[in-house]
Amino acid sequence: MDAYTPTRGDRFTFGLWTVGNRGSDPFGGPVRDHIDPCEIVRNLAECGAFGVNLHDNDLVPLGKSQKERDTIVSNFKRALSENDMVVPMATTNLFSHPVFKDGAFTSNDPRVRAFALQKTMDGIDLGVELGAKLYVFWGGREGTEADACRDVRTAIERMREAMNFLTGYVKANGYDLRFALEAKPNEPRSENYFPTTGHMLHFISTLADEEMVGVNPEVAHEVMSGLSFPHAVGQAMEAGKLFHIDLNSQKIGRYDQDLRFGSEDPRQAFLLVRLLEGTGGGEPYRGPLHFDAHAYRSEDEQGVWEFARGNMRTYKILKAKARAFDSDPEVCELLRCHEDPELEALWQAGYDSKRAQSLRQIDLKPDEVARIGLRYERLDQLMMEHIFGVR
Amino acid sequence: MDAYTPTRGDRFTFGLWTVGNRGSDPFGGPVRDHIDPCEIVRNLAECGAFGVNLHDNDLVPLGKSQKERDTIVSNFKRALSENDMVVPMATTNLFSHPVFKDGAFTSNDPRVRAFALQKTMDGIDLGVELGAKLYVFWGGREGTEADACRDVRTAIERMREAMNFLTGYVKANGYDLRFALEAKPNEPRSENYFPTTGHMLHFISTLADEEMVGVNPEVAHEVMSGLSFPHAVGQAMEAGKLFHIDLNSQKIGRYDQDLRFGSEDPRQAFLLVRLLEGTGGGEPYRGPLHFDAHAYRSEDEQGVWEFARGNMRTYKILKAKARAFDSDPEVCELLRCHEDPELEALWQAGYDSKRAQSLRQIDLKPDEVARIGLRYERLDQLMMEHIFGVR
Amino acid sequence: MDAYTPTRGDRFTFGLWTVGNRGSDPFGGPVRDHIDPCEIVRNLAECGAFGVNLHDNDLVPLGKSQKERDTIVSNFKRALSENDMVVPMATTNLFSHPVFKDGAFTSNDPRVRAFALQKTMDGIDLGVELGAKLYVFWGGREGTEADACRDVRTAIERMREAMNFLTGYVKANGYDLRFALEAKPNEPRSENYFPTTGHMLHFISTLADEEMVGVNPEVAHEVMSGLSFPHAVGQAMEAGKLFHIDLNSQKIGRYDQDLRFGSEDPRQAFLLVRLLEGTGGGEPYRGPLHFDAHAYRSEDEQGVWEFARGNMRTYKILKAKARAFDSDPEVCELLRCHEDPELEALWQAGYDSKRAQSLRQIDLKPDEVARIGLRYERLDQLMMEHIFGVR
Amino acid sequence: MDAYTPTRGDRFTFGLWTVGNRGSDPFGGPVRDHIDPCEIVRNLAECGAFGVNLHDNDLVPLGKSQKERDTIVSNFKRALSENDMVVPMATTNLFSHPVFKDGAFTSNDPRVRAFALQKTMDGIDLGVELGAKLYVFWGGREGTEADACRDVRTAIERMREAMNFLTGYVKANGYDLRFALEAKPNEPRSENYFPTTGHMLHFISTLADEEMVGVNPEVAHEVMSGLSFPHAVGQAMEAGKLFHIDLNSQKIGRYDQDLRFGSEDPRQAFLLVRLLEGTGGGEPYRGPLHFDAHAYRSEDEQGVWEFARGNMRTYKILKAKARAFDSDPEVCELLRCHEDPELEALWQAGYDSKRAQSLRQIDLKPDEVARIGLRYERLDQLMMEHIFGVR
Repeated sequence: MDAYTPTRGDRFTFGLWTVGNRGSDPFGGPVRDHIDPCEIVRNLAECGAFGVNLHDNDLVPLGKSQKERDTIVSNFKRALSENDMVVPMATTNLFSHPVFKDGAFTSNDPRVRAFALQKTMDGIDLGVELGAKLYVFWGGREGTEADACRDVRTAIERMREAMNFLTGYVKANGYDLRFALEAKPNEPRSENYFPTTGHMLHFISTLADEEMVGVNPEVAHEVMSGLSFPHAVGQAMEAGKLFHIDLNSQKIGRYDQDLRFGSEDPRQAFLLVRLLEGTGGGEPYRGPLHFDAHAYRSEDEQGVWEFARGNMRTYKILKAKARAFDSDPEVCELLRCHEDPELEALWQAGYDSKRAQSLRQIDLKPDEVARIGLRYERLDQLMMEHIFGVR
Repeated sequence: MDAYTPTRGDRFTFGLWTVGNRGSDPFGGPVRDHIDPCEIVRNLAECGAFGVNLHDNDLVPLGKSQKERDTIVSNFKRALSENDMVVPMATTNLFSHPVFKDGAFTSNDPRVRAFALQKTMDGIDLGVELGAKLYVFWGGREGTEADACRDVRTAIERMREAMNFLTGYVKANGYDLRFALEAKPNEPRSENYFPTTGHMLHFISTLADEEMVGVNPEVAHEVMSGLSFPHAVGQAMEAGKLFHIDLNSQKIGRYDQDLRFGSEDPRQAFLLVRLLEGTGGGEPYRGPLHFDAHAYRSEDEQGVWEFARGNMRTYKILKAKARAFDSDPEVCELLRCHEDPELEALWQAGYDSKRAQSLRQIDLKPDEVARIGLRYERLDQLMMEHIFGVR
Repeated sequence: MDAYTPTRGDRFTFGLWTVGNRGSDPFGGPVRDHIDPCEIVRNLAECGAFGVNLHDNDLVPLGKSQKERDTIVSNFKRALSENDMVVPMATTNLFSHPVFKDGAFTSNDPRVRAFALQKTMDGIDLGVELGAKLYVFWGGREGTEADACRDVRTAIERMREAMNFLTGYVKANGYDLRFALEAKPNEPRSENYFPTTGHMLHFISTLADEEMVGVNPEVAHEVMSGLSFPHAVGQAMEAGKLFHIDLNSQKIGRYDQDLRFGSEDPRQAFLLVRLLEGTGGGEPYRGPLHFDAHAYRSEDEQGVWEFARGNMRTYKILKAKARAFDSDPEVCELLRCHEDPELEALWQAGYDSKRAQSLRQIDLKPDEVARIGLRYERLDQLMMEHIFGVR
Repeated sequence: MDAYTPTRGDRFTFGLWTVGNRGSDPFGGPVRDHIDPCEIVRNLAECGAFGVNLHDNDLVPLGKSQKERDTIVSNFKRALSENDMVVPMATTNLFSHPVFKDGAFTSNDPRVRAFALQKTMDGIDLGVELGAKLYVFWGGREGTEADACRDVRTAIERMREAMNFLTGYVKANGYDLRFALEAKPNEPRSENYFPTTGHMLHFISTLADEEMVGVNPEVAHEVMSGLSFPHAVGQAMEAGKLFHIDLNSQKIGRYDQDLRFGSEDPRQAFLLVRLLEGTGGGEPYRGPLHFDAHAYRSEDEQGVWEFARGNMRTYKILKAKARAFDSDPEVCELLRCHEDPELEALWQAGYDSKRAQSLRQIDLKPDEVARIGLRYERLDQLMMEHIFGVR
């Protein structure tokens, strides 16, 4: 027990599918036993987590009768309550059943789209019953290999129809539920639609109930394409659209790794935590901190819980570092910018002919300004020394 | 002279900086002589191009007096008119002068932001004088290496201020001009803001005059991150935001290559041309087809014009193939989907409780639907055989 | 039946695991039924293939008794003989059983290494019994995530011990069998040892029986890292080490896709076929042409055989194009280089002080030579027009 | 002055071109003034460096007379001696002059190859005069865009001829000099020959004087392709071929960034330092630690020296962490492997029929061994906590 031991107040959550991951991959089957969802709840609570998230079929396998479903759900609710755990987020598995082999909401076959809607309405009901306030959509197989099969514009329209229908469903039922859309560039499809958080943010701006819909960015999904995850998250925050977040880690340009948070690229992890916690200024993120990762295939169940603890510890370590960095006097000094409010006033209040005229007439001496060194090497080295804990 | 020889009606354009590129790179200086812009106009016209685009300083070097500028511009206009060439697009160089070393509109120094606005207003005036209907913004150095130096949200806000001010300028002057924003993930900065067309589309949706602003996607910039360029273009088209396009080619995960159009990844080039030309359905793109590429460093000036011709020929070759593919009866048969308008009507018209209830009650037989083979291997092989010209 | 229909003489082979692939991936289980290996043999023969390759457990599942094994093998041999098919290559599955979760020959646990040797000796016996002349080693899980677990030098030494032991086994048994080692950069491990064909070629040069060991490069594995596959194959050919080849296609920087040969990046596929066929000069490759790919998950069994045919057709299409390209008179002219045998003689025969002295004294006029344009844009455009079939 | 302040004994070196870098890139010219090489020597010495490396033209610009050259060299030697600095490594600039636009030793034009040999012999003489014991070859433009222009096998043969000639030159002159070859996958060419350290190691094994030739791996060059740099370095060390090393940092799948060492991906930097220092076992690397990086373009000269110090500090920080990690008792416990020397003896001594027979007969109980958890999550988390300095 040290300063980095997780506690309920840290708002850490895990998916049932994360600590419950059995270690299968394209080249080998499971290496770990199934863990009962109620057992997962108990163990996560003991590790210091605050909640657990799920796909419909993580809890209720496909093909269960209504009665079986109700028993499973009621047992699960008891486990939650006994362990003081919540379900902040739920989602639908729209990718495992073979019927979704060419996508769900964007499939060329209307029967598949219809089935996806049925399954999602059921999943929403389940999520709401468990207390979820957020419903995540990850477009699993919404994409292509043989790209000629479907116009991308048709795919987008179909996705919009589905989202508009489903926000309608939520409103009609009076559910207190918002949607969070999750982008991914590829895998399991060669090209997924809406490959980045940016594409998703734009798509959301075209929805009927756009105020109900935000994003759920995932570290690994943005990093696969070599994009800056903190930048993507920052763009979502600036737009008031960061409804949820999936934390893990990943190397650029590889299969979806879902590694322990902060284990790859601790520099970016630091920048992310700094942004989420707002230590450098700006509004912090206040939602749940969800780890969408899984233990290496080399691990048995003991390793799974060591993995779970590692994620949370690393977040707390980085949070402490972010605070220290932003209160380091040399850092504060380096971050101080040249200010000139009178100059900025010429454009910040919007275009005005007179102010524009004034702006055009100022001699800004660009050659002189160009000679000022910005000392970013020093700033960055200080940041690294904070990450390394030697400052 | 064959079916693929470019003509004015094909709407092909080149930047002055493309055929005028002198072959410098980070490891060596120029290998080719400067070509006078008027000479470029003449040569491009002879090759079959329709127009030429430019950065302010491609035509008028920094530091010229008003009088020198006017002479240069007037000579250039004469060359355009003598050669029946147009300038459909202009843009500002906001990256070469050292003052922009940490960005232009997003710089921490308000003097830099002010200078960028001055330079852009001048550039807009120049573009309009030359007849441009589109003004492109590529955010050159808007990005970071030492990421702690600036909150990404601040960068976005500054960019928005600049765009809002500049659309104000255009409106106040009564210019018939629209903006096209161009994304790039990195280079020359380690991380650029607005790294993809998706991020840019979202940013546009937050602007004061969003109807005046669209995107200018560039093949190389999307491909650097391994994203599907046709999908990005399709999302822009679906939103009515494809105002301009930059054609070239690029390998994934490399420095910005700006290679001859279609020379890398002819499959994606085919899919792109098919989308732009609308042979597979949907509205075609009707704007200029701009090649933002340059000749290999191994070339002398003869090679530059061979390069220019190659870009245009390849576009026309692919256009002919796209038409052939979409009128191939076997392809049409493979693209025919299962239809069920009655089923689709349950959600397409928007959410309605009664229709939703009907939808939930249908037995969609997912196990049966899952067994239908989609024959995408055959479809894709046919596409490749069209690309190979053996069908 | 056209010029591109495959025939036995084309030396095309498939793995049992390729056309037998059932469509599982990390996000969903099988979508296609198991096909009996004898049935696969029949169907491949009908498609025009020449042979079939296998992992030990593709034919004989783990845990079969000796008697069951013998029955399976004897039935399979009958199917081969009835269909005039051969087994040119065999290999061991050292990655599916959970015991291999941290590698086989490089595992930290000597029991795992011992088991891998046992399994490989059995696999070699099986391969030889089926007539294989080549035995492939793909290091499945030889790699790491938690890199501190093992010194990479230890991993290399263990791999060398295993290879030396196994070539010893082959020699002691008088088998007519060579080894072909296959590199892969990552997946299923975060970092695999020997990530490229280059690393593998070097490793081979350190083996006790290096003359018995060559490489089996796979398109997808080199392309995942963005490396030139033709260059890797060329380096292997130059060293006399191209013992086998795995053909498929792949996008850079993604999960292992194993797509239909030539369907992604037809340009590189053309360059590869040109190299293998020797149409541009140099010794051709004369071994089997193995397709290590699988049909999209969208396909039923019909789609699998369409996929199989597509691979072979594309190879033959590209072979015809390679011949046409290298006999195009303009291409031949462009490929003609400046020659100066007297000059080259100064270093080509090895170092000699007198010749070196002469070499140092020549005025080579670099500024003049630098001005010669190389016309590679024209050459490359011609190549593309051959690929497009418009020349 | 703290424990991480660099001193001469740390063997840190910089290239003249690194701290002398003026900040040019493809989108803008220099932002910093030229610094005289003697001034660089003084400043580096003050920062705590041990030596300085150079390309021929970093010190003696192209076109200088013999007399001018001698004056420059003699001044430079005085500066070295006055500042107690050495030149451990020298190299040739074979990429900046336009004559090398299509490569140097692999060019199709024998005059270019001859000129490259002339220039390299001169460069070797200069390096030896300055006391260099190592001569680096980075193949700048040895590569292609229009791949049809040259058979890769021809390129390899030409490179071998050049290397064999030049080792001959060194031997004939009795120079105490070894070669170190440096790989890079691309940039400035679309595809470079010998793209990775693995390819280079193999090439070396085919040289006439292979014992004189090793590798000079560079972090950025291996990371561009997403390959593990520690693994590449480890393979070179295992083969006794790590003659020199270029330290910097880089993001995967981007232009050549040459960032400050350890600033990107501190995890890999830690693993590298641990390997070089041998704290985890194995022979350490004892050569110079060369930083081939440059300051951000945002910096003035002050920033350059802050950059220089940052590289060296980070190395020393990581070295201290590596020692701490490998003496952490819990780490030592986790790294302890199952041992069974009797079992290993069955194959480690090489193949023997009797021992092989024994090996085949042991029941290794793979299902039981498979169940052992390897606790790599815990190991990796401990490593991260050492990197973070919280353990």
